[in-house]
Amino acid sequence: ANDLHHSCQWGSGIRWGDGPTDTGMQRLALSEDDKSVRDWFIQTMKDLKCNVTVDEMGNVFAVRPGRRADVPATFIGSHLDTQPTGGRYDGILGVLAGIEVIKTMNDMGLETEGGVGVVDWTNEEGARFPISMISSGVWAECIPLAHAHNLKEVPTVASLPTAASAPETMKSALQKIGYLGAVPCSYKSTPMAAHFEVHIEQGPYLVSANQRVGVVTAVQAYRWFRLNVIGRDTHTGTTAFEHRADALYAFAQMMVRAREVASSKGCLASVGIVEAKPGSVNTVPGEVSFSLDIRGPETELVAEVERELRTAFDAIAAAEGAGIGKPCRVEWTLDFDSPAVKFHEDCIDCVQQSAQAVVADASVADTTSLVRTIMSGAGHDSVFTSKRVPTSMIFIPCKEGLSHHPEEFSTADDCATGASVILQAVVRYDRK
Amino acid sequence: ANDLHHSCQWGSGIRWGDGPTDTGMQRLALSEDDKSVRDWFIQTMKDLKCNVTVDEMGNVFAVRPGRRADVPATFIGSHLDTQPTGGRYDGILGVLAGIEVIKTMNDMGLETEGGVGVVDWTNEEGARFPISMISSGVWAECIPLAHAHNLKEVPTVASLPTAASAPETMKSALQKIGYLGAVPCSYKSTPMAAHFEVHIEQGPYLVSANQRVGVVTAVQAYRWFRLNVIGRDTHTGTTAFEHRADALYAFAQMMVRAREVASSKGCLASVGIVEAKPGSVNTVPGEVSFSLDIRGPETELVAEVERELRTAFDAIAAAEGAGIGKPCRVEWTLDFDSPAVKFHEDCIDCVQQSAQAVVADASVADTTSLVRTIMSGAGHDSVFTSKRVPTSMIFIPCKEGLSHHPEEFSTADDCATGASVILQAVVRYDRK
Ligand SMILES: NC(=O)NCCC(=O)O
Ligand SMILES: NC(=O)NCCC(=O)O
Repeated sequence: ANDLHHSCQWGSGIRWGDGPTDTGMQRLALSEDDKSVRDWFIQTMKDLKCNVTVDEMGNVFAVRPGRRADVPATFIGSHLDTQPTGGRYDGILGVLAGIEVIKTMNDMGLETEGGVGVVDWTNEEGARFPISMISSGVWAECIPLAHAHNLKEVPTVASLPTAASAPETMKSALQKIGYLGAVPCSYKSTPMAAHFEVHIEQGPYLVSANQRVGVVTAVQAYRWFRLNVIGRDTHTGTTAFEHRADALYAFAQMMVRAREVASSKGCLASVGIVEAKPGSVNTVPGEVSFSLDIRGPETELVAEVERELRTAFDAIAAAEGAGIGKPCRVEWTLDFDSPAVKFHEDCIDCVQQSAQAVVADASVADTTSLVRTIMSGAGHDSVFTSKRVPTSMIFIPCKEGLSHHPEEFSTADDCATGASVILQAVVRYDRK
Repeated sequence: ANDLHHSCQWGSGIRWGDGPTDTGMQRLALSEDDKSVRDWFIQTMKDLKCNVTVDEMGNVFAVRPGRRADVPATFIGSHLDTQPTGGRYDGILGVLAGIEVIKTMNDMGLETEGGVGVVDWTNEEGARFPISMISSGVWAECIPLAHAHNLKEVPTVASLPTAASAPETMKSALQKIGYLGAVPCSYKSTPMAAHFEVHIEQGPYLVSANQRVGVVTAVQAYRWFRLNVIGRDTHTGTTAFEHRADALYAFAQMMVRAREVASSKGCLASVGIVEAKPGSVNTVPGEVSFSLDIRGPETELVAEVERELRTAFDAIAAAEGAGIGKPCRVEWTLDFDSPAVKFHEDCIDCVQQSAQAVVADASVADTTSLVRTIMSGAGHDSVFTSKRVPTSMIFIPCKEGLSHHPEEFSTADDCATGASVILQAVVRYDRK
């Protein structure tokens, strides 16, 4: 826990309280602050006698060797980047728990069959470069390297700590901070026996039920889109509503409709980014671009929401500007598609057994109820590792289920529980 | 008309056709392009033997002396700045018509009692600095100089041709291009006998009725607000709708409601600028700021729309986030208030008579129907001059009533008609 806050000195974000650690985080992927924490992570792992490699996506792998050199290491992974208004736990906890595991193993002199590794995946958040989990996606060979390298940063991210006039690509940003590694980014070059990840839940289920550990069995589906609405610039003072093709008014109706449709199917639909052009008080915006994030427990449900919204948005666009025979148009671009995932039974079993063992000393009569299985609402690098190697995750509770917010918080006890569970899970998996 | 397009070489905007003049304009107030066209305007007026002065707001006054030095000049005024996606006529026509008038008077050797002036008012559009007609407002002593000098530029204006990292104020921008003049900005220092302005209608009435001149008798009321909606950042993938205080969703509902309420009262309500923070695909925006422009034929109607929207927006904000006991809040700031204006009878009469005289040679049986009285939907510098001196305006038709758009267009004939009408109106007024 000390290390966790120590690592947060690089990229401290919005202050929300008086305590020394009462700030959020603003450590966008591949920023100068991200470089600093990576440098610290590598030095820490070298000091712990790990072998460190960096691949072409800047993923950092640190391996504590095992008895056998011929089998791949079991990895603990997560990410050190954050949202622009992020907290101190999302991702950071997972990497720091990995460091704790290695320290503990060293302290105990524990030998393992295969090695045990810790990996910091690049740009998991998708906040600076708008594809989440992109670098584990390249590693899994689900996303082409060139596509990732050419991906441009989002211009609207608040206080982006980069002074470049043209938006950086992932490749130029990797080069800038010296993290464009030589190792090919692939599960073939950096193989893993398994991948475990501990993370704050980012939702309210554990905390509101007073439960201590979530055994994550699945991850819901999501799709990210960039939409463009094209209308016509015109004067706000002289143009009757019937004579407008107001791209922003069309957007507003679309956003309202998106919640209706998603709700009706037990899904989510959210807009995080919106840009209206030309951006002048007295010009009706002729162009609006926005992000749309659709999620649901099943891949097919997300597809259904998308289909209904395509129809609904077309109708909204067609109505706005019909009066002048110049209706708005709407264009969709799919940026990222993450189907629903089920984790590996073997890994889930290891986590389940470990979680029960860790909570067994809790002063509660029936400790089994302190552990529950859970589906993740958020995406994680484990989604992509699961395409190639056995994978599962561990959730711990967080205050109010709040995440992607400076006040994101988990107690030191809960963080320690997460670290203990993942340590045991790795050891159990290694012994299988 | 040649001069009009000549002057558009500085700040040419979006191309919409193949012809040499088929581009819009992007000449934001006090940009380098604005400096260039101002330099050209001053040189042109000096060549026409006018006396040129620049005041503390960068307003440029050029006066052709009359017989008597003891009476103030009658002015023709408008502006050379444009919207970010503006056209070649809005404002530019008015200044260029002024130049034509002076040229014609010189060619004819016409003597006037008082002088005749042409004025280029700074930042009429309110696009770069978000108060329209601000510099005629300071001249009329309706807006304090310090308030205007400290006004910051809008950061979202697309392709703002300024590389400053911190937003410029009007004062720093004036200094940067060397147009912070020494003359106090006041009707007391630069008095006028009257102010006339020719402008494209920017609306569809003249063009759709095949009428040639609008005698502008009044200007509708408007108010500009900046609103902030404060909600709570949270994760888009893990936060149920009931657990959100989504500032952007609240905004979307507000914008839809604004049109409903304004429509019901024969008014307009428009949003030109919207910014959502932090601006990340997978973070529900916790803060949204947007501009709101409310207009109506009567001051009281605009106030009514405002009152209804204050109530409605409060209700929308209160509902969003109620599920977590953290409802959104909405804050209003009034940036600019322009009550409805009626122009001066004497000036209206001069314009009416001049318009009839100019269209009299048209090959139509009943030429009186080619001229109509009209209320302006847009604001103009004449709004502020009318607070201090007799004022009125002349409208000419424009294609499709379109303005604040690159394709804004008026025929050379219509522009010439406007120039002829304003020449006659000035001469008529001078002789009164
Ligand atoms: N865990 C997390 O916040 N990941 C970011 C990707 C997502 O939006 O789900
Ligand atoms: N004429 C004109 O477009 N003026 C700008 C001020 C307004 O928005 O009405």
